[in-house]
Amino acid sequence: MRKCILMPDSFKGTMSSIEVCEIMREKIIVSFPNCEVIGIPVADGGEGTVDCFLTALGGKKVELEVCGPLFERIRAQYGIIDHGSTAVIEMAACAGLPLMANRLDVANTTTYGVGEMIADALAKGCENIIVGLGGSCTNDGGAGMAAAMGTRFFNEAGEEFVPVGCTLGKIAHIEYLPQSARVRRANIMGMCDVDNPLLGDTGAAAIFGPQKGADAEMIRVLDENLRHMAEVIQRESGMEIASIAGAGAAGGMGAGMIAYLGAKLKRGIDIVLDTVRFEELLQGVDCVLTGEGRIDQQSLRGKVVQGVASRAKRHNVPVIAVVGDIGDDIEQIYSEGVSSIFSINTLAIPFTQAKLRSCKDLAFTMDNLMRCIRVFF
Amino acid sequence: MRKCILMPDSFKGTMSSIEVCEIMREKIIVSFPNCEVIGIPVADGGEGTVDCFLTALGGKKVELEVCGPLFERIRAQYGIIDHGSTAVIEMAACAGLPLMANRLDVANTTTYGVGEMIADALAKGCENIIVGLGGSCTNDGGAGMAAAMGTRFFNEAGEEFVPVGCTLGKIAHIEYLPQSARVRRANIMGMCDVDNPLLGDTGAAAIFGPQKGADAEMIRVLDENLRHMAEVIQRESGMEIASIAGAGAAGGMGAGMIAYLGAKLKRGIDIVLDTVRFEELLQGVDCVLTGEGRIDQQSLRGKVVQGVASRAKRHNVPVIAVVGDIGDDIEQIYSEGVSSIFSINTLAIPFTQAKLRSCKDLAFTMDNLMRCIRVFF
Repeated sequence: MRKCILMPDSFKGTMSSIEVCEIMREKIIVSFPNCEVIGIPVADGGEGTVDCFLTALGGKKVELEVCGPLFERIRAQYGIIDHGSTAVIEMAACAGLPLMANRLDVANTTTYGVGEMIADALAKGCENIIVGLGGSCTNDGGAGMAAAMGTRFFNEAGEEFVPVGCTLGKIAHIEYLPQSARVRRANIMGMCDVDNPLLGDTGAAAIFGPQKGADAEMIRVLDENLRHMAEVIQRESGMEIASIAGAGAAGGMGAGMIAYLGAKLKRGIDIVLDTVRFEELLQGVDCVLTGEGRIDQQSLRGKVVQGVASRAKRHNVPVIAVVGDIGDDIEQIYSEGVSSIFSINTLAIPFTQAKLRSCKDLAFTMDNLMRCIRVFF
Repeated sequence: MRKCILMPDSFKGTMSSIEVCEIMREKIIVSFPNCEVIGIPVADGGEGTVDCFLTALGGKKVELEVCGPLFERIRAQYGIIDHGSTAVIEMAACAGLPLMANRLDVANTTTYGVGEMIADALAKGCENIIVGLGGSCTNDGGAGMAAAMGTRFFNEAGEEFVPVGCTLGKIAHIEYLPQSARVRRANIMGMCDVDNPLLGDTGAAAIFGPQKGADAEMIRVLDENLRHMAEVIQRESGMEIASIAGAGAAGGMGAGMIAYLGAKLKRGIDIVLDTVRFEELLQGVDCVLTGEGRIDQQSLRGKVVQGVASRAKRHNVPVIAVVGDIGDDIEQIYSEGVSSIFSINTLAIPFTQAKLRSCKDLAFTMDNLMRCIRVFF
């Protein structure tokens, strides 16, 4: 092979997409020492998203002081790529679960710092803002973020306040941020791989509340408060945000980004494909290698392998998927553009044992795949 | 691909080599409809050996009446291939464990019928006799087989008898069979994949006695009797057979074939490679596909994958191995001629579950391997 693109997802629970790229690259070079290998580890909006983009495109990290989850001041970083035109922000950097350690408090945590980071990036001239919506410890519907960027929230008494999960219900009126030219012009994207709506049994509080420390009663309150916020937004601006797929991501941050920033929600793979200008990279490529921890019938839609394959297919570039487990009845994947798919499992052992050797198994499988291709290339 | 050879071993405990060939062929044809596929399922001398050769080369089955393991008359079959020049005999057909059902009696069982089958094949003009040494219920050192072909055994009293496991110790004198021109000219091969010597801790009685129903005391007696037979042979003919690798196969049948018939012991894969004239078949072949149930460092030597690869390597034909489990540190296999190796495991599950889906997994892996090769061919 003369040129190939690596575009794997992480193998959940075993390897990051950056690690997968490194192992793939190493084994390709063994069989094809002169092959140009373009490594693009795919991010899903969670921890590691900034590093993925920096690995794929180069760029720099910006460090600044912003609000932490409990309004304390903390140091946080985001990435600037693409010659300064694009910022990549992980909301977890200032509103993430790890920052809370053992004092989870979903009712009182804020996304205020995320708004500060977005404002900083806009001030630095970034025209594209990618906000990774993963690993949050909040349920404030993005109200904190909005407040940090100029949106004002008032209670029945006309007092301004910054709503958090347990006080969203007190919003009586919202004064939208003075949309600066920068914000209007900016292409702001929420990056998330979940489809959850804002409210109800599959909404932000019910599905993601428990991992943030909410009990059943708290979930009821948080859900009720998000519903109130959505109602105020609809009443005052006419926007219906509650049922949008992904609105429930990150404690309602999905909804907040749409309502307060005019953002779009997109899947990680789609944002990555666009940001790296995938179609341009495909010029002269012999093969795209992708992969993820498990592929099955349920997960085919909207996942990394399918996303990569369907784009490559339009340009007739073959795609090989190297994955962990392969579920049954996945024949559909071939018509979506995957040429062939290989599992890294080399032994009939349960996942508890297999995951301990996944790096080794991936290296082995890649090595042999390249040895095979070398024979027929 | 325009032409390929399939030469897999069985996947022990899951698929016969004939089944493996069928699945491989089916999936090759999907991607390469015009490919000439030569299927050669590899036998190891055990049950299915005749069918393997008939599948690979065509031929016919011969049925005849011979001695069963307890001197009863039974119907048994063997194969004649290669335009009548070669006979393939499974000793298990008339001296096999399944014939004994629940009345195992290793002390009194005989290989007499095997001798009758060999004699029948020689009488029919076969010049090559392949005797598969697998699955036997006997421990008579091949004395029964020899007696059936004319060798005479006498006790101290000068009385002629047909020795069995518990009476080998009574042999005082052996009168070798009058070596007919046919026997002398014939190329007689014992097919076995074990290296065991005749006697001692790794010998016929100690290792294979238990599965034939022998207890510790019986093992001691059987081993002692085989030792006696070997001593008589050495005293009277000068032949030292006890330490030859494989002499302990099939209750000492390995030793008996050497001593009484001038046979050679060979591994299954080597006999198959020679019999199908592998080197001639390699003309114009794009790829040889082989495989087995498990490959690891210990098992590399003398196994099917290694045997196929080392021969193909001399003619620069690439070999792809498709196997069940792949042990660690098998890099040596590449220098022995294997181009690449793939596991059929598609899920991280234990073997108890994986074996139930091995046909499906093999089909899936072959299908994707061909899909991959098709892209680059």
